[in-house]
Amino acid sequence: MKRGIIRFDNCRLTNTASTVGKKENEGPLSKYFDLFDNDEYFGTDSWEKAESEMASRCIDELLKKCGYVYEDIDLITGGDLLNQCVSSSFTAKRTGIPYIGLYGACSTAVLAILTASAYVENGYAEKAIAFASSHYCSAEKQYRFPLDYGGQRKPTSQCTVTGCGAFMIEKEGGLKIKEGLPGIIKDAGITDADNMGAAMAPAAVDTIKRYFSMSDCSPSDFDIIATGDLGREGYELACELLKKEGMDLCGKLTDCGMLIYDIDAQDTHSGGSGCGCSAAVTASLFYNKLTYGDAKDILLIGTGALLSQTTALQGQTIPAIAHLVRIGK
Amino acid sequence: MKRGIIRFDNCRLTNTASTVGKKENEGPLSKYFDLFDNDEYFGTDSWEKAESEMASRCIDELLKKCGYVYEDIDLITGGDLLNQCVSSSFTAKRTGIPYIGLYGACSTAVLAILTASAYVENGYAEKAIAFASSHYCSAEKQYRFPLDYGGQRKPTSQCTVTGCGAFMIEKEGGLKIKEGLPGIIKDAGITDADNMGAAMAPAAVDTIKRYFSMSDCSPSDFDIIATGDLGREGYELACELLKKEGMDLCGKLTDCGMLIYDIDAQDTHSGGSGCGCSAAVTASLFYNKLTYGDAKDILLIGTGALLSQTTALQGQTIPAIAHLVRIGK
Repeated sequence: MKRGIIRFDNCRLTNTASTVGKKENEGPLSKYFDLFDNDEYFGTDSWEKAESEMASRCIDELLKKCGYVYEDIDLITGGDLLNQCVSSSFTAKRTGIPYIGLYGACSTAVLAILTASAYVENGYAEKAIAFASSHYCSAEKQYRFPLDYGGQRKPTSQCTVTGCGAFMIEKEGGLKIKEGLPGIIKDAGITDADNMGAAMAPAAVDTIKRYFSMSDCSPSDFDIIATGDLGREGYELACELLKKEGMDLCGKLTDCGMLIYDIDAQDTHSGGSGCGCSAAVTASLFYNKLTYGDAKDILLIGTGALLSQTTALQGQTIPAIAHLVRIGK
Repeated sequence: MKRGIIRFDNCRLTNTASTVGKKENEGPLSKYFDLFDNDEYFGTDSWEKAESEMASRCIDELLKKCGYVYEDIDLITGGDLLNQCVSSSFTAKRTGIPYIGLYGACSTAVLAILTASAYVENGYAEKAIAFASSHYCSAEKQYRFPLDYGGQRKPTSQCTVTGCGAFMIEKEGGLKIKEGLPGIIKDAGITDADNMGAAMAPAAVDTIKRYFSMSDCSPSDFDIIATGDLGREGYELACELLKKEGMDLCGKLTDCGMLIYDIDAQDTHSGGSGCGCSAAVTASLFYNKLTYGDAKDILLIGTGALLSQTTALQGQTIPAIAHLVRIGK
């Protein structure tokens, strides 16, 4: 069992919900999202409140789809990118559900699914919600510049997804959450906060390599192997690194950051990023594919760059992590 | 099981380590701490790096006490107060151990013990480390004012503990980690970020009340019932609220924030706070009492105020959470 793959036998993904912003809803996955709002404030008066409002709508939509109310749920796990994870705390507060706050940067959606699954599998919770969110405006303000500044973006930079994905995890029904593997932090020595794909690629490769070294499966057993938000830059780097490791992912490797936008037409440089990226893509496109038979087995590798503005300004390198879950029929 | 107490049968606290700063080492618990440093920079060139260095020394000390090396450990869970939890990420990076990042503000030590316990209990990990840290200087800089500013502190304010506590959790040996209960976020409508005790007291009371409403035990079965860092202000409020609920804790309620300093002599206003407060007190005093027979059964209620500087400046109230673990012979 030492540092091994976690195997779940009684853990199901019974439903999902996704809420996105205007830009995401204008992208190629539009038809898969449950809710969107063209108002970047989501009816509130600050971007931070907007993110929490968006996440709350997502969780309420999930409950509506399941026919549940807050009181039916035993546990909620989640997180976001804001300082002190306040979007998630204020979202969880509204629900009154016992809450486990997580921080995994953009890997948080997978970390939340993994944590909720461990609780449901072992009977600590009968029904649990996992969620993760990010908001373009709150993230830009915090990590880079206020939008009004009109700063130029580097070609390797990514566009933080305004989006939330929420997942209902129960003992029975729906899709199987089959396995999980917590990530190990890797540091490629990158100091450029505008090239997080390059910082995260080695962590993704490490987790994929560890998984297949311990699994009975080969990449050809999966319909989709998806990283969270490496973006085009990080994806290409991950492919190179995997080749060096002698790993052939059979053309099955994709990346949520490349799927959520029409990268060039929507001028998103290297693609999407943020906790909401893999959360919204998994809760929409991947859930749909699995539910309607277009895919039977998916490996999802959530990727997170564990920097803060302070560590970046102090010249520190960017550590990254990649957590894995396997979801299938 | 619905929102019930989590019962652990195969989960032990086999050792602990604590590292603190100068002020904490001058306080009443001095003899119980493993390591201290009179240099607030811990040999580094920034307060953020200092916090991570302090946490790393704590984890290395824990491994030394146990006779283990990084490679023996399957999982590390932890968190801190810094933006994007960078102290913990940089600490976990050094270890190369699979990492689950948590955010529970000052409740993080208990949240980390709870999460690591769930993994060990169910065989997902054989050996896991839980840890949490805070640093007075990095916290003041981030939440309030740079220290050089010399701002006056309110009487209700608390002093962020410079400290880290780390816990080795395994299947056998040592003390029993008997039970856990994840917290529900409560919001008392407090907006004064200098009175976090008042914000956290209702969350602590809610968790204590929920625990005893579901447990076969009564408060008299415990030697110590300790909240994390309510401080003197929050402790008095919690006692009042418990009385209103008809709960008599038999004079057994104490608070890590009141234990770690000689509050008046050390001029710490309402007492200690920060993730490192309950972490260091539990890893030193409480672990010592349990190990040497001065206590047989302890309830630890980690308390966290889930605010950020942004939410405080935007006039939002302070949500709070309290997670519980029971540790005993």
